Amino acid sequence: MNEHISSAYDRDLESIQTLIVKMGGLVEHAILEAAKALESRDIERADIVRKGDKVIDALEEQINEEAARTIALRAPVSKDLRALLSVLKLASSLERVGDYAKNMAKRTPILAEMAPIDGTDAALRRMSKEVQSMLRDTLDAYVRKDVDLAENVRQRDLEVDQMYNALFREFLTFMMEDPRNISACMHMHFIAKNVERMGDLVTNMAEQIIYMVSGVMPEEDRPKMGSTVTAQDI
Amino acid sequence: MNEHISSAYDRDLESIQTLIVKMGGLVEHAILEAAKALESRDIERADIVRKGDKVIDALEEQINEEAARTIALRAPVSKDLRALLSVLKLASSLERVGDYAKNMAKRTPILAEMAPIDGTDAALRRMSKEVQSMLRDTLDAYVRKDVDLAENVRQRDLEVDQMYNALFREFLTFMMEDPRNISACMHMHFIAKNVERMGDLVTNMAEQIIYMVSGVMPEEDRPKMGSTVTAQDI
Repeated sequence: MNEHISSAYDRDLESIQTLIVKMGGLVEHAILEAAKALESRDIERADIVRKGDKVIDALEEQINEEAARTIALRAPVSKDLRALLSVLKLASSLERVGDYAKNMAKRTPILAEMAPIDGTDAALRRMSKEVQSMLRDTLDAYVRKDVDLAENVRQRDLEVDQMYNALFREFLTFMMEDPRNISACMHMHFIAKNVERMGDLVTNMAEQIIYMVSGVMPEEDRPKMGSTVTAQDI
Repeated sequence: MNEHISSAYDRDLESIQTLIVKMGGLVEHAILEAAKALESRDIERADIVRKGDKVIDALEEQINEEAARTIALRAPVSKDLRALLSVLKLASSLERVGDYAKNMAKRTPILAEMAPIDGTDAALRRMSKEVQSMLRDTLDAYVRKDVDLAENVRQRDLEVDQMYNALFREFLTFMMEDPRNISACMHMHFIAKNVERMGDLVTNMAEQIIYMVSGVMPEEDRPKMGSTVTAQDI
């Protein structure tokens, strides 16, 4: 049932795909670990996430090099070239998601010094869990060239946006109630915004996969909360 | 004195270079205009920035297509391929800087409804001006393949980080002083953080240019405030 005979190009692409999946797995892990470390104020656990980001960065570097090497060696065109250029974009998005996880980990020791803000840690963890699950499905969609699954991920980003908006209102209330909450809330709010951005990046990845498989970039028809900024949606 | 004879590849690269410079010019303009619109609470001016982002996005699309076409047609290797892959990264960074400018413009009508926070608009405008000037030099460095100028841009990012940190402390003080400032300060703080991120993106572009010209990515030796997050550096 093979559509075409395996070529040197296919082998190269497969090895790059393996790197993407490996990188994606590390980023998934970083998101979850950063959220758990934050919730338990576990500075050592956060530190492991922080240091682990170097491995993620190195993988992006390696993917860039392998993709460039494959382009130079195999001179792919059309769909093959599109697949390789998409890989560069996917790796770049993954690296940025990893950066946001690292940033969450960096804020953990600072937040450990402050009084916790009722219930918001758990909400952040749930939000992070949702983004991690979107990322897992995006990686599956990539490997299986599954446009429907990628489209499903796109739609789910709205939930992350809603979780963020709810959290934002909570932080605002806590700050208004007691100025001593302001510092902690600003850090927590930043983390929440970064998780929301992770969701945007994963959504971009899903769109890139749709483009890679179908050759058509999906139109901006998904429901977006971010398209108009309201007082809540800071 | 021409080092080599102009080829079809050179002409393609030159036409892409023109697109990058055009896109960069629009992004520079968007940064300045967004900052001015914010300072004067000019909603119409902000709206023009917001709408103008579509043109910037379309240029990125066009650059991606032209670069892919050139790779497919000319099958460049080594330094030529590096130049084309760098172009994709530069365009992607420019698009993101443009997005941040758009986001600043989006917050202008919301902030227009709120009492201004003394002196912070002017500080934001100065910070935006610095980033725009870094971007202009980065584009010059790109066209002239000037590694020294790109290195100079890299070093200047520290100033932007310092401006951000000073602003952050101001916002915190205003919020502590009067809870009625909290909403406006959170928006203003977000804008400040986004301008700081623009500076990071422009710095990434400068590093990409150093890599493109020299083949070596600069080491992480520039002074960075962001590498350790302090309570101020939220």
